[in-house]
Amino acid sequence: MTTLAERSLALHAHYRGKIQSAPKVPVTGLADYNLWYTPGVAEPCLAIAAEPERVWELTNRGNTVAIVSDGTRVLGLGDIGPLAGLPVMEGKALIFKLLGGVDAVPLMLAVSEPDAFCATVAAVAPTFGGINLEDIAQPRCFELLSRLRPALDIPVWHDDQQGTATVALAAVLNALALVGKSLGKARLALVGMGAANVAVYRLLKVAGADPGAIIACDAGGTLHRGRRDLEAQAAVAPQWSVCLESNAEGIVGGIPEALAGADVVLAFSRPGPDVIRPEWVTAMARDAIVIAGANPVPEIHPQAALAAGARIVGTGRSDFPNQVNNALAFPGIFRGVLDVQACTITDAMAVAAAEALAGCAQDGGVREDHILPTLEEPEVAVRVAVATGLAAQAEGVARRPGTAAELEARARTAITAAQCLALSW
Amino acid sequence: MTTLAERSLALHAHYRGKIQSAPKVPVTGLADYNLWYTPGVAEPCLAIAAEPERVWELTNRGNTVAIVSDGTRVLGLGDIGPLAGLPVMEGKALIFKLLGGVDAVPLMLAVSEPDAFCATVAAVAPTFGGINLEDIAQPRCFELLSRLRPALDIPVWHDDQQGTATVALAAVLNALALVGKSLGKARLALVGMGAANVAVYRLLKVAGADPGAIIACDAGGTLHRGRRDLEAQAAVAPQWSVCLESNAEGIVGGIPEALAGADVVLAFSRPGPDVIRPEWVTAMARDAIVIAGANPVPEIHPQAALAAGARIVGTGRSDFPNQVNNALAFPGIFRGVLDVQACTITDAMAVAAAEALAGCAQDGGVREDHILPTLEEPEVAVRVAVATGLAAQAEGVARRPGTAAELEARARTAITAAQCLALSW
Repeated sequence: MTTLAERSLALHAHYRGKIQSAPKVPVTGLADYNLWYTPGVAEPCLAIAAEPERVWELTNRGNTVAIVSDGTRVLGLGDIGPLAGLPVMEGKALIFKLLGGVDAVPLMLAVSEPDAFCATVAAVAPTFGGINLEDIAQPRCFELLSRLRPALDIPVWHDDQQGTATVALAAVLNALALVGKSLGKARLALVGMGAANVAVYRLLKVAGADPGAIIACDAGGTLHRGRRDLEAQAAVAPQWSVCLESNAEGIVGGIPEALAGADVVLAFSRPGPDVIRPEWVTAMARDAIVIAGANPVPEIHPQAALAAGARIVGTGRSDFPNQVNNALAFPGIFRGVLDVQACTITDAMAVAAAEALAGCAQDGGVREDHILPTLEEPEVAVRVAVATGLAAQAEGVARRPGTAAELEARARTAITAAQCLALSW
Repeated sequence: MTTLAERSLALHAHYRGKIQSAPKVPVTGLADYNLWYTPGVAEPCLAIAAEPERVWELTNRGNTVAIVSDGTRVLGLGDIGPLAGLPVMEGKALIFKLLGGVDAVPLMLAVSEPDAFCATVAAVAPTFGGINLEDIAQPRCFELLSRLRPALDIPVWHDDQQGTATVALAAVLNALALVGKSLGKARLALVGMGAANVAVYRLLKVAGADPGAIIACDAGGTLHRGRRDLEAQAAVAPQWSVCLESNAEGIVGGIPEALAGADVVLAFSRPGPDVIRPEWVTAMARDAIVIAGANPVPEIHPQAALAAGARIVGTGRSDFPNQVNNALAFPGIFRGVLDVQACTITDAMAVAAAEALAGCAQDGGVREDHILPTLEEPEVAVRVAVATGLAAQAEGVARRPGTAAELEARARTAITAAQCLALSW
């Protein structure tokens, strides 16, 4: 009996990696090289030299995303470096392709220092239609994202921030509707203020939550105006701004104080079953919603949370209901932004994607154990793509127009082609 | 009636690019994500963190090459920039895959300045098993290659230098044998001293030519110890060292003086039918060999060269005999170096590849119009790969051993898989 870990290692060694390059065009003989390579290729080159925007039409740039990482915070494994992080980025590229029809290229960087990291990403940007940052330690990840987003004319996305937040928001939207509460009036506790919850906080605000009713909590306790340790880091990390505008009551203390009376707790902190204790869940509001996102061990076991009085529980794991899984969002979001050649992904676009994701689960009927769709539903990425593409146009960041029907056709064509390619393997 | 150029443009627009990503492993359902992505992927990550060399076994790094260009000298189109150069690099990636089974990723760089260019390539190197520099203006290309080759522990190849030189050397070896002359005693003229002929000069020496019997010629005339203009550039360009060791007779003048009495002329200069005049070919030695490599218009028309007394003529074009085409070399050379995890490509390895390429043509019988094989012979890349891999071991730069039979099996497996993938398109 082999374990999952043993099988994974053996299969990785057998296949020597997970993704490859493949022709996108038919090539049946030498004559085709004359079209695709020299001398014929001079024509698209000259066309792009004359009109740079035609690069989107005449190359695969418009369907290509770089997955960029320095391997400094890989899964729960920590700083294992760029070589050891490569299997994760290849796996992500596989999901990008199969669920979103997106051609994703891992780029493991040997540099971590922000100037060098940003310079490298900017230097390679002409090849790509988008940049997906991944598995980068905080607080550096905040600086990299906030510097690269305005510097490039293609979307820069940090999936550990925006992706996780998008799926978490979808879960919260459906869960609140199920228990008959509104986001605008909900009291929300955030446990852990790393990459994920900093973005969760931002998206919650854009989606209509009251920042004053959000009580965030990190290893130093609740976030409030007295947190001098966070003020000292204000230049490189965004948590201080959360101190200034959240927690209107100025609650001081730790996780129990943050959870007391809360309608929702979103935990993305450190793995371990005792981070959130059952009695703290019991002290939340009626019909409490618990998202315990740490992997591989949620901050509280779902059964323990339910026994303590929670009505709805989500985790990061596939073996419990309501999996908050980034793969529900990033394939569709990038499909959508590539299909309208968006130059950025605004927070409003992420909220639109979250609402579409919530809508997917509503079709099957939202229940306590079904507040999110699963990866097995191929329509999810299509719907997320359409919502994202429409939101990009509404935000004025799209370079290629498209109606909902056109975006749906583009997304479905790309995703179907990718799945056929996988089946032809 | 549409032209080749019109068809190429229309097809590029239809397919929106030429290469894509594809799964390298079977994925049939959600359970497979547990193996290839989280949680299973943690195991290969930890294995590489413990033993970095296992990255070659557990990821696709060992089959992945970056095609890096800043678009400053694309084909004969000049400095058209990174966006406009992308169609060429995608075409090259297509050939890498179909002929060599190599997964090649275009990387168009927005930076050209040598420090920034080298820093970018070094930063992305952990993802790749090799770097193919392409279409970079000289003299910068010399500096970039000579800085990056020793700086990285993976092969760095500039195809416009080493690739062209490898194929040209193969042509010269077979042509000289056909006319019963030896390389060691041949008098050789080089017309144009750009990226290609600087490398041709180096490989000719490694293959056994007498440097004193090589007369090179650029826009300033023959290269000799009196060329103060080249001495002034000695720090950034390698032509001065050619002045110091070639042309033992100290011949001064231009192309006619370089060609007088030469057994071979290798021209890689500027396109145009009048660069080499027929009367200069007439003044070459008996059984003269003319390689006129400029594209799209050779330095002398093959018919004109033959009428002027040349016995063997090669060009860069597919519509004349003896096409000196880089695609004969780079797929097999990279196949070979990846299959032995070579850390560099020495000039001796390039010479071994040239000799294997010459051997491929010998099998079909070397004739005046058949001194090189054609792209349509799938065995070419396999034989070049085996020769390159064996040479890498002889040079002490291989990290993975393999007998000739093992290397042949590795190459044939990779190339066959790529061609099946293309057919399944």
